[in-house]
Amino acid sequence: MQEATAHHLGTPLAQIDTPAALIELPRMQRNIARMQERMQERMQERMNALGVRFRPHAKTAKCPAVTQAQIAAGAQGITVSTLKEAAQFFAHGITDILYAVGTVPHKLPQVLALRRQGCDLKIVTDNIAAAQAIVDFGREHGEVFEVLIEVDTDGHRSGIKPDEAALITVGRALHNGGMHLAGVMTHAGGSYDLNTPAALTALSEQERAGCVRAAERLRAEGLPCSVVSVGSTPTALSAKDLTGVTEVRAGVYVFFDLVMHNVGVCSTDDIALSVLTTVIGHQADKGWAIVDAGWMAMSRDRGTQKQSRDYGYGQVCDVEGQVLDGYVLTGANQEHGILSRADGLLAGADDIAQRFPLGMQLRILPNHACATGAQYGEYHAVENAVVRETWVRFGGW
Amino acid sequence: MQEATAHHLGTPLAQIDTPAALIELPRMQRNIARMQERMQERMQERMNALGVRFRPHAKTAKCPAVTQAQIAAGAQGITVSTLKEAAQFFAHGITDILYAVGTVPHKLPQVLALRRQGCDLKIVTDNIAAAQAIVDFGREHGEVFEVLIEVDTDGHRSGIKPDEAALITVGRALHNGGMHLAGVMTHAGGSYDLNTPAALTALSEQERAGCVRAAERLRAEGLPCSVVSVGSTPTALSAKDLTGVTEVRAGVYVFFDLVMHNVGVCSTDDIALSVLTTVIGHQADKGWAIVDAGWMAMSRDRGTQKQSRDYGYGQVCDVEGQVLDGYVLTGANQEHGILSRADGLLAGADDIAQRFPLGMQLRILPNHACATGAQYGEYHAVENAVVRETWVRFGGW
Repeated sequence: MQEATAHHLGTPLAQIDTPAALIELPRMQRNIARMQERMQERMQERMNALGVRFRPHAKTAKCPAVTQAQIAAGAQGITVSTLKEAAQFFAHGITDILYAVGTVPHKLPQVLALRRQGCDLKIVTDNIAAAQAIVDFGREHGEVFEVLIEVDTDGHRSGIKPDEAALITVGRALHNGGMHLAGVMTHAGGSYDLNTPAALTALSEQERAGCVRAAERLRAEGLPCSVVSVGSTPTALSAKDLTGVTEVRAGVYVFFDLVMHNVGVCSTDDIALSVLTTVIGHQADKGWAIVDAGWMAMSRDRGTQKQSRDYGYGQVCDVEGQVLDGYVLTGANQEHGILSRADGLLAGADDIAQRFPLGMQLRILPNHACATGAQYGEYHAVENAVVRETWVRFGGW
Repeated sequence: MQEATAHHLGTPLAQIDTPAALIELPRMQRNIARMQERMQERMQERMNALGVRFRPHAKTAKCPAVTQAQIAAGAQGITVSTLKEAAQFFAHGITDILYAVGTVPHKLPQVLALRRQGCDLKIVTDNIAAAQAIVDFGREHGEVFEVLIEVDTDGHRSGIKPDEAALITVGRALHNGGMHLAGVMTHAGGSYDLNTPAALTALSEQERAGCVRAAERLRAEGLPCSVVSVGSTPTALSAKDLTGVTEVRAGVYVFFDLVMHNVGVCSTDDIALSVLTTVIGHQADKGWAIVDAGWMAMSRDRGTQKQSRDYGYGQVCDVEGQVLDGYVLTGANQEHGILSRADGLLAGADDIAQRFPLGMQLRILPNHACATGAQYGEYHAVENAVVRETWVRFGGW
């Protein structure tokens, strides 16, 4: 980020083939700094020298360059959603990895292989059958797996409820079975459905209290539980109190997106990921410009459809990234996007063709950064409308 | 496809890491044969020795092995939606390629490069600005581009309406500018919104009549127009008359999907693409099994949401591919799918955990094969629950 050279290096956007995924570097850096500052504030309030570790979820970007920027800013370890992510980031030198999807028996050989190579890979479970399989497989291979129990604090997906008997059953099975019971983790993904600061703060507290409650129950049974890990982007940014929490996780905050805008935890000017596209035609009588970003470029994610403001397949911006208020992608086929007014009003007769002429480049802000990023094999890291670097992104399993 | 060896070769599905994309080979072969037979029938009805060529759209599978099976069955040339597809299939020996998305000036150098390498790449346009850019670029580089004019026969996307003055303006610009005006093409994508045989046949006729009308107008002006190209999977399978048509295009028919099932052009037993997944946990009190196929594995496509039957994120089948009627993926996070009853009724208390135990493999039929396939770098070609071959799929632009 040497400002002095920024204007002299790199490829102008006009020379980039479309569609392409752009990361606006100053925005990404600001998003990363904001999250670390938030963790620092909570640490100071608690007057706890150990503080709260921040463990970003690498599933959003799946890009070593992005994760390295997070670690440079103070993140400690990462979270992943697949073993492919674990293997890829480990190959890039990251060892402290939490695989945050419940492990099934047939994936244990891959977990073992990574640990034997020196990866400090932690796994999670929320049921006795999987816990027993971990114990059996660990004993058979002489491996002490490090395991967190997944806790369900908002009913949206997986996990054992904080007061369920199964929590202790699973904890005992792991600990007595010789595994390293590291602690508890939860993800209040229900936060994506909220849109007021009060509701977000309340769910943050519910997430914290439920996870801490589960930890206390395990400890009361004499079981070890050093890690209390919580988080989602909305709750991480809305929590007022993190008492008892040792670790916070969040993923999409690094890019943000229109869904997060509607949830209320960012502005459109914070959204760092966009899709560069080109106008390829018009249906002037309908007020449409046709662009070469269809759903393959944007993903099929329509996350804002049921939120307070529906952005269709994405918010249209000029090539510099300035929002063109009122214009969205109202439709998408595989490689065609339909750009028109969000309010359904017709633009003036020739207005659409004059405002968005053939060959014009635009940027489109996505509904959901995790889904849109996944459509690409690389990101162009952009500053001042110039591509500074191109970063590989991996996919698959 | 040597039946004698099918049981002795390959990897059992139990050894395949999940999630994974499976192609059920006998179904794919049947879908390919059915389309070619349909073309043959129409040819015989027309008593036209030249017949109707079938030019499959390779964007659905993006897989040379699939396209080779289509060509082996009688397909002549292919259709693509990106220049990356054109380059990839050309590298696999296919030369007759129609790039069916309106070309913009900045993509012409790539088109030229492919043609100079020997690729018989045809491009399309629907406006005078792009047509003039093609002429200017062609003259500048001494290249006679082969161009089809895109015609809008159902108002759903791009194209010039059959009776618009612009059709002749664009045709004259191309022809008088020294380009090879090859003909007209249209895609009645509005067929995806229909669900009765009568409506589908009516739209097929509208597509045919509109495209033939455009061709006749060009010819009446003394302009060449040898190609009249129509198609979408629903209209290709529903057309009763193809008089005046020289070429039919279709893509998703090779795999079919739940959207096509709801449109009424296939049964669930025809769907050749599925996602192999594993049960990773339960929320028994809610009647949920959690599987490792979330939206990253299925795509975010919810194409059946506004159709007569909503399949959520996909129809659940057993590992052999038999539909488990009434069970769908009702929800999806990035790497978690929620399997439950489609009718919202609770399964019996422990029923869900007994019926779908931890570690059980299942297959999920997708809403939209083009979108689901795009989430993978490879397909496993399966027959009798054994992986016969693994085929590379490419993505990106």
